[in-house]
Amino acid sequence: MARTVGIIGSGHVGATLANNLLVTGSVDKLVLIDTNELKVNSDATDFEDALANLPTHTKVVKNNYRELKHADVVVIAVGSIGVQNDDAKHDRFVELKVTSKAAKEVGTKLREVGFDGVLVSISNPCDVVAALFQHYTGLPRDQVIGTGTLLDTSRMKKVVGQRFELDPRSVSGYNLGEHGNSQFTAWSQVRVLDQPVTAALSEAELDELAEAVRAGGYTVFHGKHYTNFGIAAAALRLVTAIINDARAELPVSNFREELGTYVGYPAVVGSGGVVRQPQLTLTSAEKEKLLASANYIQTRYEAVLTELEK
Amino acid sequence: MARTVGIIGSGHVGATLANNLLVTGSVDKLVLIDTNELKVNSDATDFEDALANLPTHTKVVKNNYRELKHADVVVIAVGSIGVQNDDAKHDRFVELKVTSKAAKEVGTKLREVGFDGVLVSISNPCDVVAALFQHYTGLPRDQVIGTGTLLDTSRMKKVVGQRFELDPRSVSGYNLGEHGNSQFTAWSQVRVLDQPVTAALSEAELDELAEAVRAGGYTVFHGKHYTNFGIAAAALRLVTAIINDARAELPVSNFREELGTYVGYPAVVGSGGVVRQPQLTLTSAEKEKLLASANYIQTRYEAVLTELEK
Amino acid sequence: MARTVGIIGSGHVGATLANNLLVTGSVDKLVLIDTNELKVNSDATDFEDALANLPTHTKVVKNNYRELKHADVVVIAVGSIGVQNDDAKHDRFVELKVTSKAAKEVGTKLREVGFDGVLVSISNPCDVVAALFQHYTGLPRDQVIGTGTLLDTSRMKKVVGQRFELDPRSVSGYNLGEHGNSQFTAWSQVRVLDQPVTAALSEAELDELAEAVRAGGYTVFHGKHYTNFGIAAAALRLVTAIINDARAELPVSNFREELGTYVGYPAVVGSGGVVRQPQLTLTSAEKEKLLASANYIQTRYEAVLTELEK
Amino acid sequence: MARTVGIIGSGHVGATLANNLLVTGSVDKLVLIDTNELKVNSDATDFEDALANLPTHTKVVKNNYRELKHADVVVIAVGSIGVQNDDAKHDRFVELKVTSKAAKEVGTKLREVGFDGVLVSISNPCDVVAALFQHYTGLPRDQVIGTGTLLDTSRMKKVVGQRFELDPRSVSGYNLGEHGNSQFTAWSQVRVLDQPVTAALSEAELDELAEAVRAGGYTVFHGKHYTNFGIAAAALRLVTAIINDARAELPVSNFREELGTYVGYPAVVGSGGVVRQPQLTLTSAEKEKLLASANYIQTRYEAVLTELEK
Repeated sequence: MARTVGIIGSGHVGATLANNLLVTGSVDKLVLIDTNELKVNSDATDFEDALANLPTHTKVVKNNYRELKHADVVVIAVGSIGVQNDDAKHDRFVELKVTSKAAKEVGTKLREVGFDGVLVSISNPCDVVAALFQHYTGLPRDQVIGTGTLLDTSRMKKVVGQRFELDPRSVSGYNLGEHGNSQFTAWSQVRVLDQPVTAALSEAELDELAEAVRAGGYTVFHGKHYTNFGIAAAALRLVTAIINDARAELPVSNFREELGTYVGYPAVVGSGGVVRQPQLTLTSAEKEKLLASANYIQTRYEAVLTELEK
Repeated sequence: MARTVGIIGSGHVGATLANNLLVTGSVDKLVLIDTNELKVNSDATDFEDALANLPTHTKVVKNNYRELKHADVVVIAVGSIGVQNDDAKHDRFVELKVTSKAAKEVGTKLREVGFDGVLVSISNPCDVVAALFQHYTGLPRDQVIGTGTLLDTSRMKKVVGQRFELDPRSVSGYNLGEHGNSQFTAWSQVRVLDQPVTAALSEAELDELAEAVRAGGYTVFHGKHYTNFGIAAAALRLVTAIINDARAELPVSNFREELGTYVGYPAVVGSGGVVRQPQLTLTSAEKEKLLASANYIQTRYEAVLTELEK
Repeated sequence: MARTVGIIGSGHVGATLANNLLVTGSVDKLVLIDTNELKVNSDATDFEDALANLPTHTKVVKNNYRELKHADVVVIAVGSIGVQNDDAKHDRFVELKVTSKAAKEVGTKLREVGFDGVLVSISNPCDVVAALFQHYTGLPRDQVIGTGTLLDTSRMKKVVGQRFELDPRSVSGYNLGEHGNSQFTAWSQVRVLDQPVTAALSEAELDELAEAVRAGGYTVFHGKHYTNFGIAAAALRLVTAIINDARAELPVSNFREELGTYVGYPAVVGSGGVVRQPQLTLTSAEKEKLLASANYIQTRYEAVLTELEK
Repeated sequence: MARTVGIIGSGHVGATLANNLLVTGSVDKLVLIDTNELKVNSDATDFEDALANLPTHTKVVKNNYRELKHADVVVIAVGSIGVQNDDAKHDRFVELKVTSKAAKEVGTKLREVGFDGVLVSISNPCDVVAALFQHYTGLPRDQVIGTGTLLDTSRMKKVVGQRFELDPRSVSGYNLGEHGNSQFTAWSQVRVLDQPVTAALSEAELDELAEAVRAGGYTVFHGKHYTNFGIAAAALRLVTAIINDARAELPVSNFREELGTYVGYPAVVGSGGVVRQPQLTLTSAEKEKLLASANYIQTRYEAVLTELEK
């Protein structure tokens, strides 16, 4: 059956992800939705203009929620709609005012059309918005995933790879926690050249790498006031793992029972969404950081939910 | 040997093309150059953040002209540098003031570093800028190609395909002339379902299709104040044909001796650039349109060259 | 929903097609079926051994007809089961004794499990076997397609491309008729460098090219006693066009009402199978060849059907 | 510059790898060489027949050693030349009589034409043949790599993945030693779901998995008397890592100074071949197994070299 992916939000991230899916032939039908009709019409037409020069065919549909009823994956990329948000401050919670309302509105619509696939949320603050979407769509928790620390992890792999002159794909390990200021690398889990990275580098050197990850994020954001290519590649990988039923282990925002919240933590991802939840053996310091990060998400989630339900 | 592609200009088009090359694994080394250092650093970092989630590896290098000496292809995408040009009027000659100076400056630098691959120019007005690059790089004419009417042609294939409910790849034919207001579909060359389209549709119907092509362009531009996905897919195809030495026939801006100028017209493209120049059998009306379009390009080219050489 | 493709027959062609689908990530679930259990187990395991080194995931299932109930496409590649047929003579009707029985048996099984997708038949003699499968599955004619002259056409494009030093993809036109000794190039439909090839080459030269196509087929067959890579690439393209709902025009074996039989002739192919049947304007000589070829298929089909129904 | 890959040996493995490179567009020029001219002509023609139905172009050249002078990679796949070897016993040393002579002859030819890229040897017994090629080509050791235990490792990842219902790509670790009967899984290095597999499974369970790996190999071999898809996917990945200069860590046969021989052990692979040699922390039992395996390779290598130099 045709692979159908919906993308709600046609800003830099949503549009770049749509382009990635199209250019790699990873989807058969692409449903683009945005309240900015001019923008979504513009992108949809631009994608159709691309087809004759690409090897595979994709049907592009726009602004039709009913097409999402049988979608395999719906990706939420609201919040950075077009150029108007380019000058937003780099605190993802600035976006919450917009994205929380969108979660209520869009989530309710998805419930109404009977969407029962996997929802992948990119919108920031990622973990809170994923939780809101789970709430408003009424989907089982396993079927709602945030991109979480998948991008943070690839940034960590990049800096570790650069440090050891190694393919970032040959670095293993994870960044955990909120996709935001309280995310952190669980260095105890990072392995490179068949050793724990903690055996190869001092704590000061690890701090430098963590700082390089952060600095990279700032470089991206301050150079163009948004980020799109890194996060869209992460989302491409996540969407593909779901469609392929790959059962791949990826650090995404998933609901962790023991923490009572969505938070960036490795999960096994397949066609049903989260199909298994591994348990890491973290250090005490890492556990504390994770707990603090989870609590922060939880607090923000409850506050915004109360606000939305007023 | 590693496939090296340089992209000069990190605006919407240059960055989207870079992303396409990366995501499809079509290049081994990508050299990104822009006078806006913040933007090029931002994009380069964003691309590096994508690598761990993509299947193939690409080395990303930034702002180093010397890396272009042995590049296979250098793509020119200057002129829409970042968001500042988003509100430009939709007359491509508005951009000439910026892009003609860039052609002189960048072309001279490419000559200085000894670049001897194929130059693909996307910047607008496409045909004039391609001619300027040929002039300032001193490269043989065969090694300088503009994307020309490759995008216009894919737009025509789209609307014809939609009219006949057919894959745009199953429509053949070309748009010719200046990549701008005087471009036109050579309907005498368009075939669909194994007939000339002129046998299937009336002149009025063809005019409607031509209007739909134009309207599509406006829809894209007015919805976001730039176009990127369609043109970047066209450029991806062109760059790949050069790297693969495909000897594919594509409607691009190439120097036509009989018209004395660069203009959108089918050419056979391979690793040496333009490797053969077919000759179409056009109607008299089409010949006139082509000549008018070519003359317009030629006049503008001479005027801007005089200005630059003052 | 997961793209499911079944391949019945695990000989050189079926196995190479399975590999193509796997390596290009074109399918999510691959169902391999063969009466030779050793061979199908061997291939299925070999494919699973490949997964860890490929970028995308595919589930491999073996010898389970029930998995085909909801398959998008079932490909028939019976008849060259493993090495034992390698010394078969190069007359595709030698294979009919085996493949006609398989058509009855496999077709009946597909009907029993309720398969209602598109059946793509590669087994030889291609057109007769496609017709038998339509008969025994009871599927609507539009949902049964033979690969027909898609391979012959790509061979023609290759020799014409070589003659003009041109990408074979830049040659248009078709080979028609039975995928066998009576197939022929409809030179009146072949275009190269924007002209009819008949304007560029003499009849003698065209005959030479037709001879080169035939000689190519013999070179392939006599060097290894089977052909696989060319036909598997053709099948990959056809299967992808169906899954993508591309509505691409391809020369495949489809049931032509006016000829009363399956025969190689361009058809528009999408998710429903044949979605449109264009009409070529052939020369009288070409019409006669096509009619003769169609009559031959029809006669053989009726004879074998009578035999099977005894 | 064009990516040029040579494949010497047009048996099941060489031909399947060539097809993989073609179908995925991973190479621009493919040079096929075999002493069986009928077979290499057959395959080369079959590949050219595939081109019109594939998205990217590849030039196919046959039986021309001079084309290898500037090749990026030359792959050695001699020894299973066509169907005649299909009934060989499954002891890879049976093949040594043929492959050792080929190593001398082909290696000398490669030296004569001045090949200075990376040589990837698949022919069995893999480690001994890789060593012979290094000797006869005179290439630096870093530029000669055997596929080694890359296939064994992917088989291990498959069975571990199946045991934990997990993507094999989410299993890390290696098989080490001779690509042959003395290879073994270094269980101390295998991690799954963020734990050492040794923490999750008992020794008996690990033994069962090791047995399943072996049984898989037999299933493949006994079902068709050769293996091709798994090894060709492994070689595709290795060749791509070299061409991309990925600096990926892969378990391949590389010359280990401390063991005095080529042997399957992780190495970092890039455009120069082996660019770094990590050091594993193995258990004593694993060290012993590795040493025994290495000694076996070394002994066989010296014996065959003496034979060849008589």
